[in-house]
Amino acid sequence: MQKEKKIAIVGAGLVGTLLGIYLRRRGHTVHVYDRSPDIRKINFSGRSINLVLSDRGIKALKDVGLDDEVLSIGIPVEKRAIHIGKDAVNKQFYGKDGEVIYSLSRGLLNKKMVDLAEQEGVEFFFESKIWDVTLTDATLHVGEEERGEWTELKYDLVFGADGAFSRIRHRMQRQIMFNYSQEFLNIGYKELNIPANPDGTHKLDKNSLHIWPRGQFMLMALANLDGSFTCTLFMPNDGENSFEELKTKEQLVAFFGTHFPDTKEVIPNLVEDFFKNPTSYLVTMKCFPWTYSDKVALIGDACHAIVPFYGHGMNAGFEDITVLNEMIDKYGDDWANLLNDYENSRKPNADAIAELSYRNFMEMSSKTADANFLLQKKIEKWFSDKHPDLWVPLYSRVTFSHQPYSEALAEGDFQNKIMEEIMKMPNIEEKWNSEEVENKIISLLK
Amino acid sequence: MQKEKKIAIVGAGLVGTLLGIYLRRRGHTVHVYDRSPDIRKINFSGRSINLVLSDRGIKALKDVGLDDEVLSIGIPVEKRAIHIGKDAVNKQFYGKDGEVIYSLSRGLLNKKMVDLAEQEGVEFFFESKIWDVTLTDATLHVGEEERGEWTELKYDLVFGADGAFSRIRHRMQRQIMFNYSQEFLNIGYKELNIPANPDGTHKLDKNSLHIWPRGQFMLMALANLDGSFTCTLFMPNDGENSFEELKTKEQLVAFFGTHFPDTKEVIPNLVEDFFKNPTSYLVTMKCFPWTYSDKVALIGDACHAIVPFYGHGMNAGFEDITVLNEMIDKYGDDWANLLNDYENSRKPNADAIAELSYRNFMEMSSKTADANFLLQKKIEKWFSDKHPDLWVPLYSRVTFSHQPYSEALAEGDFQNKIMEEIMKMPNIEEKWNSEEVENKIISLLK
Repeated sequence: MQKEKKIAIVGAGLVGTLLGIYLRRRGHTVHVYDRSPDIRKINFSGRSINLVLSDRGIKALKDVGLDDEVLSIGIPVEKRAIHIGKDAVNKQFYGKDGEVIYSLSRGLLNKKMVDLAEQEGVEFFFESKIWDVTLTDATLHVGEEERGEWTELKYDLVFGADGAFSRIRHRMQRQIMFNYSQEFLNIGYKELNIPANPDGTHKLDKNSLHIWPRGQFMLMALANLDGSFTCTLFMPNDGENSFEELKTKEQLVAFFGTHFPDTKEVIPNLVEDFFKNPTSYLVTMKCFPWTYSDKVALIGDACHAIVPFYGHGMNAGFEDITVLNEMIDKYGDDWANLLNDYENSRKPNADAIAELSYRNFMEMSSKTADANFLLQKKIEKWFSDKHPDLWVPLYSRVTFSHQPYSEALAEGDFQNKIMEEIMKMPNIEEKWNSEEVENKIISLLK
Repeated sequence: MQKEKKIAIVGAGLVGTLLGIYLRRRGHTVHVYDRSPDIRKINFSGRSINLVLSDRGIKALKDVGLDDEVLSIGIPVEKRAIHIGKDAVNKQFYGKDGEVIYSLSRGLLNKKMVDLAEQEGVEFFFESKIWDVTLTDATLHVGEEERGEWTELKYDLVFGADGAFSRIRHRMQRQIMFNYSQEFLNIGYKELNIPANPDGTHKLDKNSLHIWPRGQFMLMALANLDGSFTCTLFMPNDGENSFEELKTKEQLVAFFGTHFPDTKEVIPNLVEDFFKNPTSYLVTMKCFPWTYSDKVALIGDACHAIVPFYGHGMNAGFEDITVLNEMIDKYGDDWANLLNDYENSRKPNADAIAELSYRNFMEMSSKTADANFLLQKKIEKWFSDKHPDLWVPLYSRVTFSHQPYSEALAEGDFQNKIMEEIMKMPNIEEKWNSEEVENKIISLLK
């Protein structure tokens, strides 16, 4: 146990709620503030890509005994199902037998996390708008409107778990020596829906992440518990094949007819959903430092918002909590050094998963339909199966291990250099699983 | 003449005042707001590196007939004087005969610019704190305190010339699709002073920019009209040879004795100045877009704050005005397209001068004392003198031409690649000005 502190967490999202549980277990008083209504009392919908939970996130849940509870509302996903042409589907398994990731609906998961946190004694204050924080004494400023009356709420420690547009970070940003960047992709996304069959079953294989890769744009789908799929269309905001070009019903139907003909029967409400749902944007946000003395700390998207293409937003946020918890073991009540070590140890890994996520858009949207790329992946898998001690594929290291993201990225870059050499070998298409290739990889690994 | 608009400029600095003059010449009503008192009525001092005015800035002044007036308070600087050891000074001329830059005191120049703008009919509102802007209708929000009462000021168009911590940009930053970064160097700087001789003359050669390069830190000095020099000490904030290490009078005196022994007689008030003057920081800030419809535009440091090592902060800001003025010629009253073309044409050049400025710290602090680097510069100068049509040195292209910064940077990188090859030639120290070297450069240029 640490010496009890009165701690505020701003943001009742996935990271805020799980952090609350961890801090309660350490004996603290925990208040969670969120500007939205209680998610359990509203109809959550709209603009969300389904969440993917993998080993790093599962570990953070397991360490407080909540993994089974959460996995019970998830659907295991073992592979990519790549829809290349009409009816042609190419399957890529994510890992070895039994290595799966889990598809989760954000709304459903968030409701469960609030329930679980409440059971631990975390107190929630919904519809409470935090506009500012005084860094030097961990005081929150809450009020109905930004320009209206505010009330002060004094804490011992404040965590900003309030996402990519964090108000807590917003205050830290105005200090000197605070590095910050936000970079928007010129790619938007829109949620579509594949409803369940009348008997409640899924219209597509539910244990696959479905991708329709089309170069500069793609469609993907992840299964929900109720038999439906949440689909997401990723596409440039303007230019050729962009959201800007799809202004009318006719343009939309023609576009899907040309590029996604096999989705016609499974997305019956295409037109309605497309024009009803907002087009959302994608941003990578980096900053440093993440903490202020022993008073204020950022966690999750509030200090490292990433694009969703590796499925690691929540996993990286949950791993922040694992690392913070390790630091509590290490430093006890010395919060200043605890937070300092937390931010320094975590920052390079947050940068690495941002880079990996950014690169993965190109892999998902364009390379998964490329014969050379598929051959390269086949060789890597073949070699890795033969020499599991010599070669763990990048995806596995990121998703099915707890190796720091920054090391995974560095080793992935090294493997890529080797594979560039291999792919240059004459007639590689024919001799891809030959002893010659095997030996060459081994020699390049040295 | 354009159709008259009511235009507000936020910031009465160098860019704000010169922009005001340009807009008055086009027939607009121009109000300039600044949160500080009238600079003409206060004792301006403190944390400033002397300004360097060169061709790009001079052109912007000349186009409104103000170059002579401004140059009259400047001191021509024709070379770097590099203080390598005690009394050893190495001279590097910046350009060809007659190519000079001008050293200007920021306070003196700013006062003159406010005077000149007032003479043009620009109206100034000092001690007016602009806290926010409504982008859609160019309304400024002014008040004593951020959390107090505000008054609305409605304009047709607002320019944010309010520097690196611009409030106007601050509002734009909260839009989606607004890219932004601020990155602090871990190098601080402090102003010191070399007073004039009793007879009013300068203690060092006034037509040189003096540098004491010491690797990770350096001292520099630029002359003032009154016989004094403004000195600036650049040094890491922490670590070896850092501001953190200079806590006591004894540490400071010992440090200067070791590293800058020849300054002992010319900086008599070292201890007093060092501990009285603040340590300032250095930031590179980039963002995009710079404008909002035909209502709001950023200019100067407000949209591209750079580190001072190329001496181009003011020159780049003044060149923004030149480009804006060209756009007025081109688009007339079509402000939406005018501002759109302005930001798109200017952004790559702002990024390029940011990069050049960042790189130049290494050149000034460490390479200027490196024999190889000095040889390379000597070869470049020798070749350029022989073939002025084939080789314009990077510094000259940036400082003595109006070539877009982005092109200058690209050509500079190309030249650097060539010089890397040349410096690898055996016995280059002996044959540096041989026909062989000459021919090799010519062949690599093709």
